[in-house]
Amino acid sequence: MTIHLLSNTLDPVLSEDCVLAIGPTATFDDCPEQLDILFVPGGFVGKAMLDQATIAFLADRGAMAPYIASVCNGALILAAAGLLDGYRSATHWAGRDHLAQLGVEVSTERACIDRNRFTGGGVTAGIDFGLTVFAHTLGEKAAKFAQLMMGYDPKPPFNAGSPQGAGPEMVALFDKFTADSDTTLRNAVSQVKEQRAASSPTRHQGRMPASPPASSPPDRPFHRTTSLPTSTVCGALCDRNPRPYRGRGVVPTSSFPAPCHCTLGR
Amino acid sequence: MTIHLLSNTLDPVLSEDCVLAIGPTATFDDCPEQLDILFVPGGFVGKAMLDQATIAFLADRGAMAPYIASVCNGALILAAAGLLDGYRSATHWAGRDHLAQLGVEVSTERACIDRNRFTGGGVTAGIDFGLTVFAHTLGEKAAKFAQLMMGYDPKPPFNAGSPQGAGPEMVALFDKFTADSDTTLRNAVSQVKEQRAASSPTRHQGRMPASPPASSPPDRPFHRTTSLPTSTVCGALCDRNPRPYRGRGVVPTSSFPAPCHCTLGR
Repeated sequence: MTIHLLSNTLDPVLSEDCVLAIGPTATFDDCPEQLDILFVPGGFVGKAMLDQATIAFLADRGAMAPYIASVCNGALILAAAGLLDGYRSATHWAGRDHLAQLGVEVSTERACIDRNRFTGGGVTAGIDFGLTVFAHTLGEKAAKFAQLMMGYDPKPPFNAGSPQGAGPEMVALFDKFTADSDTTLRNAVSQVKEQRAASSPTRHQGRMPASPPASSPPDRPFHRTTSLPTSTVCGALCDRNPRPYRGRGVVPTSSFPAPCHCTLGR
Repeated sequence: MTIHLLSNTLDPVLSEDCVLAIGPTATFDDCPEQLDILFVPGGFVGKAMLDQATIAFLADRGAMAPYIASVCNGALILAAAGLLDGYRSATHWAGRDHLAQLGVEVSTERACIDRNRFTGGGVTAGIDFGLTVFAHTLGEKAAKFAQLMMGYDPKPPFNAGSPQGAGPEMVALFDKFTADSDTTLRNAVSQVKEQRAASSPTRHQGRMPASPPASSPPDRPFHRTTSLPTSTVCGALCDRNPRPYRGRGVVPTSSFPAPCHCTLGR
């Protein structure tokens, strides 16, 4: 199995606090033509949705990939590339309205499978999603092994992992703290809709989705998978306080403003 | 809140496949004296348990820290530094026997709290652990907000996240695939026991644990927390195929041998 981590360039893509770096292994230009699973992560995806190199790459490889996948708001990037037209998809609970705005049938599942589209819910749903994809591609035995390895027998201390469980007061607090990034996302959705309407006025009128493979191949490994790290981490495409890479990964975190949710206890 | 990511040096600490880098923000030498939470992550910790700079640093800061914490087999590093003498602790299920060998009372909880020691189980237990610590230090409201943000409403597709759920056949497969790293860990435990017996023959005879703070301070933020990235990722201290950092994070994953569990489906 070969995993390609893809980005516009080979520069490290940094997390919001600039202490975690993901090193792309190939660029959009030198990535193999044929990818078995085209996977897009989520996060603050407004800029990625509007990045033409990203969207063109996804549309191109997505037309050939046997499987197309995302977790969290990565579904919004897939939708921006037209890869969810006619499909049902999960996303982060706070991104569901945006996904619907892009004409996608929204699922509330943790791991949603619609033909050859595998999509996961927000952040931690990526674990349920990952095990589900693992089972469908490498077989149930491999998935169970991974689950045992990572001790995934969850016991959440609170029932606050969904809007229903957390309740309206907590959701209002969430909305307040994410207002800026939600506005960025809303604007990106509007721009994507305008661009797609202008470039292909008949796009939503009867276009057939690409066919999935005739059958899924359990117990047969994939040779290539693709991950696109541009959106989960702070780099050229991240909405949130992009900062230059200062080399060696050495950045005093004390010099950064606290992430929004860290001010809650103050 | 300030988070210090600590290591022997400021060099990036790389993941096993060398595509994920964590940049330390301070070294053991220039880290602040007083830390609110001294936190140690897990992984393949055999080398870290025997690294004298790591152990000396933890013993020193641990004597002053109001809270001492770990997830996964980070508990074995804490134990090697004497910081779990007289305490109950969780760890990865496969590390429990090793932890008991070091004289620690083993808990099977996802998040174990014994006075001022906060310890988590294996890998994904870090989420339950993190929310529990969050609630104890910044308050329940902050913890529930974090849970909502990351959509932590788990729905595992299988019941294979514990040895009991996965069953003996899967556990035997796990033992086979982790035999080498388990041997490394077993040897490290033996060496730690010998070193501690030689340096402090009366250590286990009535030494009183450090007292926890008089009361935990919910809704009051901590000013400093510490994470030690040396053991979860592949660097000088990782047991598993350490490889040189090749700069810019650009490493073709196709040149690496597949991790052990990736060969399952072949």
